[in-house]
Amino acid sequence: MAEKCKVQFVPDGISTEVAHGTTIMVAAAQAGVFVNSLCGGEGVCGRCRVIVRKGHISGGSTEFFTREEIQQGYVLACQGCVESDLQVEVPPETRLTGRPEHVPGEVPFLAELAKSAGRERVLSPLVRKTFLMLGPPCLENNVSDLQRLEQSLRKATGFEDLQMGLKVTRLFPVVLRKSDWKVTAVTGFRGPLTEIIDVESGDTSRQNFCIAADIGTTTVVCHLVDLRDGQTLGRAAKYNSQAAYGADVIHRIIYASQDPANERALREAIIGDLNELVRGLTHRYRLGTSDISLVAAAGNTTMMHLLLGLPAENIRKEPYVGSAYHLPPFRAAEVGLQINPRGLLYCLPCVAGFVGADLVAGVYATGLARGDNVRMLIDIGTNGEIVIGNKDFLVCASASAGPAFEGAECHSGMRATPGAIDHIRMADARRVLNYSTVGAALPVGMCGTGYVDLVAEMLRVGVIDRTGRLNADAVGGKLRTGPHGELEWVIIPAPQTGNNTDIVITQGDVNNLLRAKGAIYAAATVLLKALRMSFDDVAEIMVAGAFGNFMNLANAVFIGLLPDVPRDRLRFVGNTSITGAKFAALCTDCYEEMFDIALHTTYFELSTDPSFMDQFISACFLPHTNIELFPRVMAEMATERGS
Amino acid sequence: MAEKCKVQFVPDGISTEVAHGTTIMVAAAQAGVFVNSLCGGEGVCGRCRVIVRKGHISGGSTEFFTREEIQQGYVLACQGCVESDLQVEVPPETRLTGRPEHVPGEVPFLAELAKSAGRERVLSPLVRKTFLMLGPPCLENNVSDLQRLEQSLRKATGFEDLQMGLKVTRLFPVVLRKSDWKVTAVTGFRGPLTEIIDVESGDTSRQNFCIAADIGTTTVVCHLVDLRDGQTLGRAAKYNSQAAYGADVIHRIIYASQDPANERALREAIIGDLNELVRGLTHRYRLGTSDISLVAAAGNTTMMHLLLGLPAENIRKEPYVGSAYHLPPFRAAEVGLQINPRGLLYCLPCVAGFVGADLVAGVYATGLARGDNVRMLIDIGTNGEIVIGNKDFLVCASASAGPAFEGAECHSGMRATPGAIDHIRMADARRVLNYSTVGAALPVGMCGTGYVDLVAEMLRVGVIDRTGRLNADAVGGKLRTGPHGELEWVIIPAPQTGNNTDIVITQGDVNNLLRAKGAIYAAATVLLKALRMSFDDVAEIMVAGAFGNFMNLANAVFIGLLPDVPRDRLRFVGNTSITGAKFAALCTDCYEEMFDIALHTTYFELSTDPSFMDQFISACFLPHTNIELFPRVMAEMATERGS
Repeated sequence: MAEKCKVQFVPDGISTEVAHGTTIMVAAAQAGVFVNSLCGGEGVCGRCRVIVRKGHISGGSTEFFTREEIQQGYVLACQGCVESDLQVEVPPETRLTGRPEHVPGEVPFLAELAKSAGRERVLSPLVRKTFLMLGPPCLENNVSDLQRLEQSLRKATGFEDLQMGLKVTRLFPVVLRKSDWKVTAVTGFRGPLTEIIDVESGDTSRQNFCIAADIGTTTVVCHLVDLRDGQTLGRAAKYNSQAAYGADVIHRIIYASQDPANERALREAIIGDLNELVRGLTHRYRLGTSDISLVAAAGNTTMMHLLLGLPAENIRKEPYVGSAYHLPPFRAAEVGLQINPRGLLYCLPCVAGFVGADLVAGVYATGLARGDNVRMLIDIGTNGEIVIGNKDFLVCASASAGPAFEGAECHSGMRATPGAIDHIRMADARRVLNYSTVGAALPVGMCGTGYVDLVAEMLRVGVIDRTGRLNADAVGGKLRTGPHGELEWVIIPAPQTGNNTDIVITQGDVNNLLRAKGAIYAAATVLLKALRMSFDDVAEIMVAGAFGNFMNLANAVFIGLLPDVPRDRLRFVGNTSITGAKFAALCTDCYEEMFDIALHTTYFELSTDPSFMDQFISACFLPHTNIELFPRVMAEMATERGS
Repeated sequence: MAEKCKVQFVPDGISTEVAHGTTIMVAAAQAGVFVNSLCGGEGVCGRCRVIVRKGHISGGSTEFFTREEIQQGYVLACQGCVESDLQVEVPPETRLTGRPEHVPGEVPFLAELAKSAGRERVLSPLVRKTFLMLGPPCLENNVSDLQRLEQSLRKATGFEDLQMGLKVTRLFPVVLRKSDWKVTAVTGFRGPLTEIIDVESGDTSRQNFCIAADIGTTTVVCHLVDLRDGQTLGRAAKYNSQAAYGADVIHRIIYASQDPANERALREAIIGDLNELVRGLTHRYRLGTSDISLVAAAGNTTMMHLLLGLPAENIRKEPYVGSAYHLPPFRAAEVGLQINPRGLLYCLPCVAGFVGADLVAGVYATGLARGDNVRMLIDIGTNGEIVIGNKDFLVCASASAGPAFEGAECHSGMRATPGAIDHIRMADARRVLNYSTVGAALPVGMCGTGYVDLVAEMLRVGVIDRTGRLNADAVGGKLRTGPHGELEWVIIPAPQTGNNTDIVITQGDVNNLLRAKGAIYAAATVLLKALRMSFDDVAEIMVAGAFGNFMNLANAVFIGLLPDVPRDRLRFVGNTSITGAKFAALCTDCYEEMFDIALHTTYFELSTDPSFMDQFISACFLPHTNIELFPRVMAEMATERGS
């Protein structure tokens, strides 16, 4: 049948028409309605739950739903095929709503930049504008237009090796004459060369802006920065639209490598996100997109590959090799970014398949590579990335932690969007004392920081023991066997939630969270051991990531996610990826130093280290099999038992 | 009327359909039939003579034709408009037939290259191919694909700063794996950077070819060179199709600056010529156009501008400034050249608006800039270009000689195509002793070398005196008043010609030839005076250009085109433009040295020198007003008078 079916999505109220047999997931993508997914449509993650309110579908497995849910119309969007006109509800847990929270107040940026670079004058953007007043040619001085321009530019800037592309070479002689020989040269750094990327009429040197971008697997953040003074004018963020094709990098790599059209879809998704953010920011500050001549981008290795359209498939296969980690600037237009058509995209360098430009940016931004003291940076995400070092050495590793702390792989898990419980305290084993949610909304699920608190509190009050096992004796009626035969503990009962669904934590959830925190701790331990060091030798442990910013550090130590060191050695550093990208954009030397960092960071492959599995198993206890590694936690536990 | 008219051109037999009112010139261009033109269709040069055999035309001035010619159907193609179906004959003098002659035997090229560069190993092409056998990645060595490639390439070549464009970065990881990690890196020189322009599967290093191109105003020459050993495999040449839009650079600049479409037409004409030559050469040697990864091009400043689409209009206006003289390599595909899509076009540098890359190539190829002795290079064309110098200094000038020596601006003038008289000797004032024609065809006109001989012989036998005035007393019946009231002398009467038309030289022709030779001689004199030197201080005078190659040097001295120095100080050097382009392609240092030459050559503007006009007027005598400057000619004249 060639007839089309109309599919309406609620609560958005957006409709689209698709052919019979199309999956609801594809219909949603076509309608621009976001539906959560971890597996990229393979029907294995069970995240793309939707409710068919009206109409008929075919297909769809039942294993992810209770009988009651199936009667309500629940189906996986990736499995259910459209067979008639439909009305489909996308429930809150499947939606991405609202905008992610921003990193709080930045330290005054230029001062920090100067301090970190240890010099007085550091503003040397990768793309600069120089106003030039050229004399018109005469018989006594009749060098070519290009030489006239270059001579003046060299004098003004000290740039030696100048080069100009064909398009600008064709146009600039007319610009020179139209503007009475008063022009602004836009120059871009290209290593040993400086490219004259554009010649603008008159003095436009006051209009020189850049976008610093942090391309996360989940969230894309852009800052609009004035390159004249380094001030950040505005910030914007949105979810990475690639999430529709898989929640983590592995699933996206698999999806991309199945078909060139898939690769293109992923590329277009992230390019679309960046263009949307750029448009929004420029509109808000009354700029044209052509006022943006530079994008500096950081992200993990896979994100950088998918952005540029580089083959990513070998990143996920041993020996985990990416196509390219150190890339020259590219014409932003060639990549698809809608800024000044002659503007440049600078990608920060990566270290390895699972140690990306975001970590390099973090190392730079935290000054790790400039210090005398040995320090550690932990970037918590689906992959926990850890780097240890000082000005003399840098060693890093990456551990697959799983997405539990990002709200995935847990029954009531969700991202840090409105309604997510981000902090929680318990009165005793039977009662929650208080909690907070993102956006102060009625609770609908738990995000990662909520789980850190929850696991710590459950351990404190005895709902779980040090192995993570739910303790039926301690909790009474709140512990039950869930629909899939798994033990679960009800955190918030349905009537008190925003979606009339119990918020629970299952035994499986706890196990996932323990594996995640265990992987990160074990990675740090193995890396230290390889260096014949211990946490005591580390002067400071910095926690980065959107996750880390709101996390209760004491609880993170209590569950053994972070080591039990004196509290003044633990520090949150927020989104160091975007800070690093901004450093690069504003300071050519900083950008170059990042390549040095990437080149000189030794990547330690955990999967080949025989002790990693032992360390991992030991770290899957609360806080650790060897509790003596956590003396302060031990003391607290003793106090609590005593009280 | 919207109906079309069919226009058939004979003898080609090619037809085309055009709208009423279209000029015959446009119809010919559309049909691909070459019609000579100097003025670009302004109706002022009178070169585009055609004969309407059948049908009706409108318009067309009569001033260029005799009554008889008008009765025969003669009309200027650029003025006559099609009003019905037509049959149009393009007479021989208006056609370009045959292929231009080639430069005779090259000295073994590599030996010359080594000698000129003064080093043993000089083969270092601008584009190189390096076969690399990479090991596959493993956990112990899991750098990115790019780093693996670059490390190996650095080891093999010593190249430091490597860079790769986005397109190749997207493709090469797949190539690496498909070819079992055995690949050929194609690298292009970009000043301080080396670009990896392509990565090819397996070992293709034996297939690396380049095209050296000399883009003359009249003739385009291409040589196919094997970059492995520097051998020239083949040569091909054709007329520059831009000639349809004007015979000299000034007319083409005017045409180009009138409309962007005109500029494009000129650009497409020369690109089409180059592509045709490349296709022919690659076909002849069973190569694919993709085996050509490099084009090295020399030409005068205007030709380089029109090739690249740079604004050229300021070249012709005081102070004669071009858009750009020193250009980086461009992607050949961006310019429109059909070679390897990733291949590069290297344009040799120019010095000034009227001193082009062809002269720079000549300076390099002749070793002028490396010698101890002061030498002079004269490149004879529509503009006579002169450079004087040695390893310590280089000074150049350009004089507008007019196209007389190229067969234009003379009544029976034509290019050096079949039927052109290229050498002539006279028995006495009434009789030609013998002559030769290009292609040994029946004579139809005179080309430049023929005019050099003719003027010299006419002076020797007394047909003209030292002012160039035709001497009616000396010649008897052969001198007559032509159809336009001008005195003319019949060289070959109609019955002995190939087109049944008298071949004549008019008083105006002689005057034009004297002005041309006078301009070149005066330019050399003024340039020497500015240096406080004389011809005696010049160790060698080299004559370059397609013209110079077949010229009778003794006659050139006799008429005062060249100075009267000992014969062993005069040398023909042939087409040094293509030789220089080949040097550049084969030797990166040579290419860079040419930029040094261009930069350090002082351009002397003759139009601002008050003595130039005096010198010019003095040089418009035969051989010169001050005959004592020509002692050997003086002696010969005395001998002849004595005999």
